[in-house]
Amino acid sequence: PGLNNMAAPTDLYQFTMAYAYWRAGRHQEPAVFELFFRDNPFGGGFSLFSGLHDCLLFLRSFRFTDEDVEYLRSVLPPDSDPTFFQFLRGLDCSGVTVNSVPEGTVVFARVPLMEVAGPLAVVQLLETSLLCLVNYASLVCSNAARFRLAAGPRRKLLEMGLRRAQGPDGGLTASRYTHIGGFDLTSNVQAGFLFGIPVAGTMAHSYVTSFSSLEEVWPQTLVAANGNRDQVDLISLTKGWLGRVCDLLGAEPGKIREGELAAFLSYAIAYPHNFLPVIDSYSVSCSGLPNFCAVALALCELGYRPRGVRLDSGDLCRQSVNVRRVFKLCSEHFSISAFHSLIIVGTNNISEQSMAEFNKRENEIDTVGVGTHLVTCTSQPSLGCVYKLVEVRGRPRMKFSEDPEKTTVPGRKAVYRLLDTEGHPFLDLLCLAVEPPPKAGLPLNCYPLGWDNASHSVTPAQVICLRQDVFTKGQVGIAQHRMRDIILYMHKAKVQSSLQTLHPRHKRLQEPDSYTVSLLYTRTRCY
Amino acid sequence: PGLNNMAAPTDLYQFTMAYAYWRAGRHQEPAVFELFFRDNPFGGGFSLFSGLHDCLLFLRSFRFTDEDVEYLRSVLPPDSDPTFFQFLRGLDCSGVTVNSVPEGTVVFARVPLMEVAGPLAVVQLLETSLLCLVNYASLVCSNAARFRLAAGPRRKLLEMGLRRAQGPDGGLTASRYTHIGGFDLTSNVQAGFLFGIPVAGTMAHSYVTSFSSLEEVWPQTLVAANGNRDQVDLISLTKGWLGRVCDLLGAEPGKIREGELAAFLSYAIAYPHNFLPVIDSYSVSCSGLPNFCAVALALCELGYRPRGVRLDSGDLCRQSVNVRRVFKLCSEHFSISAFHSLIIVGTNNISEQSMAEFNKRENEIDTVGVGTHLVTCTSQPSLGCVYKLVEVRGRPRMKFSEDPEKTTVPGRKAVYRLLDTEGHPFLDLLCLAVEPPPKAGLPLNCYPLGWDNASHSVTPAQVICLRQDVFTKGQVGIAQHRMRDIILYMHKAKVQSSLQTLHPRHKRLQEPDSYTVSLLYTRTRCY
Repeated sequence: PGLNNMAAPTDLYQFTMAYAYWRAGRHQEPAVFELFFRDNPFGGGFSLFSGLHDCLLFLRSFRFTDEDVEYLRSVLPPDSDPTFFQFLRGLDCSGVTVNSVPEGTVVFARVPLMEVAGPLAVVQLLETSLLCLVNYASLVCSNAARFRLAAGPRRKLLEMGLRRAQGPDGGLTASRYTHIGGFDLTSNVQAGFLFGIPVAGTMAHSYVTSFSSLEEVWPQTLVAANGNRDQVDLISLTKGWLGRVCDLLGAEPGKIREGELAAFLSYAIAYPHNFLPVIDSYSVSCSGLPNFCAVALALCELGYRPRGVRLDSGDLCRQSVNVRRVFKLCSEHFSISAFHSLIIVGTNNISEQSMAEFNKRENEIDTVGVGTHLVTCTSQPSLGCVYKLVEVRGRPRMKFSEDPEKTTVPGRKAVYRLLDTEGHPFLDLLCLAVEPPPKAGLPLNCYPLGWDNASHSVTPAQVICLRQDVFTKGQVGIAQHRMRDIILYMHKAKVQSSLQTLHPRHKRLQEPDSYTVSLLYTRTRCY
Repeated sequence: PGLNNMAAPTDLYQFTMAYAYWRAGRHQEPAVFELFFRDNPFGGGFSLFSGLHDCLLFLRSFRFTDEDVEYLRSVLPPDSDPTFFQFLRGLDCSGVTVNSVPEGTVVFARVPLMEVAGPLAVVQLLETSLLCLVNYASLVCSNAARFRLAAGPRRKLLEMGLRRAQGPDGGLTASRYTHIGGFDLTSNVQAGFLFGIPVAGTMAHSYVTSFSSLEEVWPQTLVAANGNRDQVDLISLTKGWLGRVCDLLGAEPGKIREGELAAFLSYAIAYPHNFLPVIDSYSVSCSGLPNFCAVALALCELGYRPRGVRLDSGDLCRQSVNVRRVFKLCSEHFSISAFHSLIIVGTNNISEQSMAEFNKRENEIDTVGVGTHLVTCTSQPSLGCVYKLVEVRGRPRMKFSEDPEKTTVPGRKAVYRLLDTEGHPFLDLLCLAVEPPPKAGLPLNCYPLGWDNASHSVTPAQVICLRQDVFTKGQVGIAQHRMRDIILYMHKAKVQSSLQTLHPRHKRLQEPDSYTVSLLYTRTRCY
């Protein structure tokens, strides 16, 4: 029997509450929950909303098997009425409706991102799974977007955090949502397999250190790229180039690591079109770089285009400048134009601060590989979305609290994004669902959520209804593509277009101007 | 067709390297990798080794399907030799041997925890998956052990981090390994279902705020616990008690929230044996606590034992003291002994620092629920295990680096734990596998890894061989139980017994004395 039937991980108290609702005959009462977070992550001015697609898949298949129900019976108090378990067995989301911000949208703290309406017991049961699916997806997508903003549009970004991720699935989720957030490539083969994300990678240090002498290189020959079938002895060819490179760079032949040269040669013979070794297993300047140049020049002589190098330790900026200088020197001295387009990949414990440093210090890094800090979101490893009841049977519900910031805004709402004359969003407006929507060109009074509660007047140049119906009475209401890579591409494009319209002052990674989220001011409203 | 076949998530470069080894005819060469981490997590003096069991399951089923291989063909360079893919299709771990520290053992930085030996291409391919399975499991288990040390043996610890975990599977892994690390309970139903971990939970604030009046309570009656079938009107009974409680506590009846009282009553009627509400949805002292006392006293009158309360906001220490004072007051005033054994659960963004505070400040919290800081390991969200090649074809391999601390210790090793006369481990000793093991009572010379390299002499009172063969030529070599909960229990017991022997100076959570890891000093050794 499959052990993985429990629809999705969730918390026990959802079931004890569902039981109490059911016991009181309240389980079918129409209820509305809102999902939102209280603070933008990473001290930034925005977040990206992600995970919706997974939520919809979860809602569509939400159901408990016999085995699930038997387990629940064994952990709920023994005095539970047995009829409740028949009720659980028959549950699904056919009575549930979700109104949500689209996947990949720029969003802000305190804006209700999803509104989940349906029978009280069912929408309560959905809480943990929806939070779990949105929280980390949104967090890691936002983190990736920050890396992308820090990197600028030109530099390639490679996600390579799988080994440091919080569990195998954490790694897969990270690969997927960092791609949506702005990364180009992943090292994670499963993410490529499942979602069509472009994968990249060549070799680790272990490959280099596994070689100790040129005798381990086999085969030792390569044919030219032009189709000539003559086998050329690549070792001899490279040895010749190595001598010339050492002369040119003033490198000491005695410090060249033979094992490293063997590793490079062996890899070049295996993949002559994809030569991109890691060059810091011993010493970049004394061994890795001369070895690379020699093998790469030999490949060029045979008509191949070597791709570049990876640096994985030390001061990446300083080293990349030196490596580029040597590439130019070789290119000019030996008249090899392919050396102009070699790329330099940097991958040493890169953080958002490292990216900022790359913008300040001279460097020649074309592709940056990011692992731990990207996938685990070191500076803030959770987003903190919450799921709060705002209405039951048409009546607004609200929670006070011993912590004032945990108090919720009651009632079912509509959410509008107000744009200025330049097309930049400047305010997200929460209205009660029953209130008329704001109109472009017309002033309206509102008061900002948060500390400063003075009401003020604003006139939007454009009004966007921020949420849409994505799940109506059990039916997924947005475009569903069977190809996961098309979905991925759509979400990735949405992130970039949504970020594009945001004013740079809100996108600043450090001390951004805070974006205003306001309640419509209505004299007649009272709670 | 199943889309989930790719054996486990891994990095592309494992395959490009495997190809290059295969192309050079080196794929069958015997190779040895070591898995270790470079720094103890959380600024502490130790870590716990976890994830081995999952590694063994992974190794046992390691294989590529036709679909996997087709995908790999599509992402590897097009000039790859097609025969390689047949080789991949036939791969398994029948040639692999793993020598490992047992699951749940206290371990230290720089000690090789697992030694993976086998054909070069295969053991290389295992890297990412093994790291991914060990890194987070060990990290979160160590984090849980720190919470347990901070909590002391008496307090109950509840893991409730699922909604903030890094993906659904991250949450499941967290529930499992925090239980092994010392937690008693989880809120995660899937973890209970899959691993038999005891689950706990009663109600959220949304349950409380979903009620607005006593009219929503249904049924309104309860029978006594003694088997008398007469239905007693619990609302009237509770109203009577509420008046007396308000008098006793000097609480204003006008500030009592009727909806909260209705929620408590409804829950008590549903689960009279399991009454443990959250009492801070509005105000603990003005409403939640009097409401709880009234319902609990009514339950007691009917012969039930209410269980306690949960506090989820504000100053938990101060509030718990006040709650306990009120419980005692009620107990004495109304002569209700059951109020002596009520428990207080605290659950407000608990961190390791909160736990330390609980030890310093007066409080009455019996059970602590921990979420975000536990499962995401906020203060250090990744462990940083690495997997380094130490031997190929019987010859030691070593990596230098631009970062000196990344340099590895070459050669296949044996690892011994030396104990002092009181049974406390005081030194982990790395020897070459070919060197004779240290003997109890005999002095030996060694030099510590790290900055201070002066050799010194030590005499162990006892010597333990730290690792054991757990996977031999494809066969799992340690006890395999079919019941996952037995495995879990064994690992949990191992953690506590392993921690028990560690001297308190190494277990201190802040500024522990660092544990010594040394290399055996041999005059004849040279690299």
